Amino acid sequence: MSERFTVSYRIFAASADEARARAEAIALEQTVEIPRDVVPAGYVEDEILGRVEAVEPESGETYRARLSYSPDSAGPDLPQLLNVIFGNSSIQKGIKVTGLDLGPTMSARFPGARFGIEGLRAATGRAHGGLVAPVIKPMGLSAAEFAVTARRVAEAGADIVKEDHGLANQPAAPFRDRVPRLAEAVAEANAVRQAAGDATTALYFPNLGGATTDLVADAYFAKEAGAHGVLIIPGLQGFDAIRALARDEGFGLPIMAHPAFLGPHVLSPDTGFTHGMMFGTLMRLAGADVSIFPNFGGRFGFTPEECTDIVSACRDADGPGRAILPSPGGGMSLDRMPEMMRLYGENTIYLLGGGLLRYGDRIGDAIRDMRRTLG
Amino acid sequence: MSERFTVSYRIFAASADEARARAEAIALEQTVEIPRDVVPAGYVEDEILGRVEAVEPESGETYRARLSYSPDSAGPDLPQLLNVIFGNSSIQKGIKVTGLDLGPTMSARFPGARFGIEGLRAATGRAHGGLVAPVIKPMGLSAAEFAVTARRVAEAGADIVKEDHGLANQPAAPFRDRVPRLAEAVAEANAVRQAAGDATTALYFPNLGGATTDLVADAYFAKEAGAHGVLIIPGLQGFDAIRALARDEGFGLPIMAHPAFLGPHVLSPDTGFTHGMMFGTLMRLAGADVSIFPNFGGRFGFTPEECTDIVSACRDADGPGRAILPSPGGGMSLDRMPEMMRLYGENTIYLLGGGLLRYGDRIGDAIRDMRRTLG
Repeated sequence: MSERFTVSYRIFAASADEARARAEAIALEQTVEIPRDVVPAGYVEDEILGRVEAVEPESGETYRARLSYSPDSAGPDLPQLLNVIFGNSSIQKGIKVTGLDLGPTMSARFPGARFGIEGLRAATGRAHGGLVAPVIKPMGLSAAEFAVTARRVAEAGADIVKEDHGLANQPAAPFRDRVPRLAEAVAEANAVRQAAGDATTALYFPNLGGATTDLVADAYFAKEAGAHGVLIIPGLQGFDAIRALARDEGFGLPIMAHPAFLGPHVLSPDTGFTHGMMFGTLMRLAGADVSIFPNFGGRFGFTPEECTDIVSACRDADGPGRAILPSPGGGMSLDRMPEMMRLYGENTIYLLGGGLLRYGDRIGDAIRDMRRTLG
Repeated sequence: MSERFTVSYRIFAASADEARARAEAIALEQTVEIPRDVVPAGYVEDEILGRVEAVEPESGETYRARLSYSPDSAGPDLPQLLNVIFGNSSIQKGIKVTGLDLGPTMSARFPGARFGIEGLRAATGRAHGGLVAPVIKPMGLSAAEFAVTARRVAEAGADIVKEDHGLANQPAAPFRDRVPRLAEAVAEANAVRQAAGDATTALYFPNLGGATTDLVADAYFAKEAGAHGVLIIPGLQGFDAIRALARDEGFGLPIMAHPAFLGPHVLSPDTGFTHGMMFGTLMRLAGADVSIFPNFGGRFGFTPEECTDIVSACRDADGPGRAILPSPGGGMSLDRMPEMMRLYGENTIYLLGGGLLRYGDRIGDAIRDMRRTLG
């Protein structure tokens, strides 16, 4: 028998007895999904059925339950692992996923990020300091217009030139027309940087926003065209899209994950995942190298505590897999960079999008300012 | 210019002015994602930028905002359409999607279900009455054991033999070993039914629970093996997985959608989608022919009103696409069937899973009982 993996849940219950009963119900729901009295004896009951390892009071109205599951209940696939962690239980109120311990068997099946923090530092050549990531937008501009901006920010010292997560196949700049032009613009900027003695490189990350069935082909197209990584929205393309590319030797480029469509999984106290679980642990489990999340104090309501929970989960030395780079963004401006740097430190990718457009032709100055602030 | 599509949001706000400001913020967030004062004049401002069409008070603390978006902001792809409807706004508290009007341009891009209610009635040969769908489970049994149950329920008159959404590639019964055996068992049962003069057919729907990148190949494998449709979990595989198969002429089989992992999108009043939007409208938009949801009074906390909201959204004559079959399940027992039949009526697929296992070798009697109750 292989070693079980463990999931922690916050359970809302009026008493310890009710919490225990709810935990036992989760053990059934997430595996056999049949009443306890008809669970077949032997392998199904002894191995497949979820096991309540502990139920402890947490606060006045919540309990922390640790359940263990057999690797055989998930099998080799990430969708089914997520299904065991929180498939049907996601539809029951008063249950939040707070922790995941993969154990050796599942850790071997899901080795996580290919690059992680060190891999991305090596790829950019930026050994120290926060990483600077301007965002190419808004949708509706042409590929030629995007290319002008991409070249300017790359020349000025950007580490990652990231496309907006809303750039897909809109008629103004469809993926297969846009990506080669931006890759070329970034390559030309890198040549200028290199000629000036700069040892660092700007990486270009286009967004894989097209059909899910085209995602792998689009990723290969982007690589062929000169992109250095890709952006994926797991809330729309599925977490397994990240895993597939992270494990694809032929592709072999880093992956940024975007939080769009996943908000309801963290916004409520009594359902979904904690912020750290969703934007740290699950992204690492899938194999993302970077996890984007909305910074506190911007247009989104995350608290500083929720943001540091994400950052800790991204960098935790205990896995899953390699430590990855958290990437706060969302309505940031240059004057907030020193405050962010103090909170998040250097192993962070600092996104700046709409605010950059204020600088117009002088956008390069903004990148250089940002670079100085981030060390 | 093509005709815009319209999304309705419930916005939590303290005043009409705040509600209007939040609506204007959504219009930016879901499209250009830059501050209003730097939106480029011309095409981006006039066409791409979301447009607030109306903001009306709804209750003491909520407002209903109708926003229109250009088909050019979504382009041809479903992931990006969902991104425009509720990508980043999903991460902001106090916004719930309550309505979608595709308009002619997007309706043509997303024609919806291939079969719908009429197509599935034709495929089963069941012109009237509720459809009977036993669920094959629990995980951990062998394909041979599942096949015995599948044959029994199919012989007894099941309309759809549905696999549990937790059957994936577990070692006890991996997909490519399991599906041909169950397809054969159901085919043999259909031969018995036909020989007895029964004009109806049991359809076998395996679950596509493997890797997302294998989903299309697995669907073709299932069809080749004799399956009559498939089950997909859009919360794990992405909504676009449904669309891809629904639009695939070579595949051409009906699709059931399962709600696992999507709970947080409906459980809270102030984020996500209404029940009808998520389990009716979005499933139809993607192209599902059947939408499974947890019945009231079972292990899940949906109210009768939330369930009828789903049912209405599945059957609404105004689309998206063809009307589809709602499929309540989740801890149901035979004695609840008359009550369910009164509420949901005959254009419904009645799921029965764990409760059936109580009948053991007499499981066929339970199916025949169910058949009689459902007309």
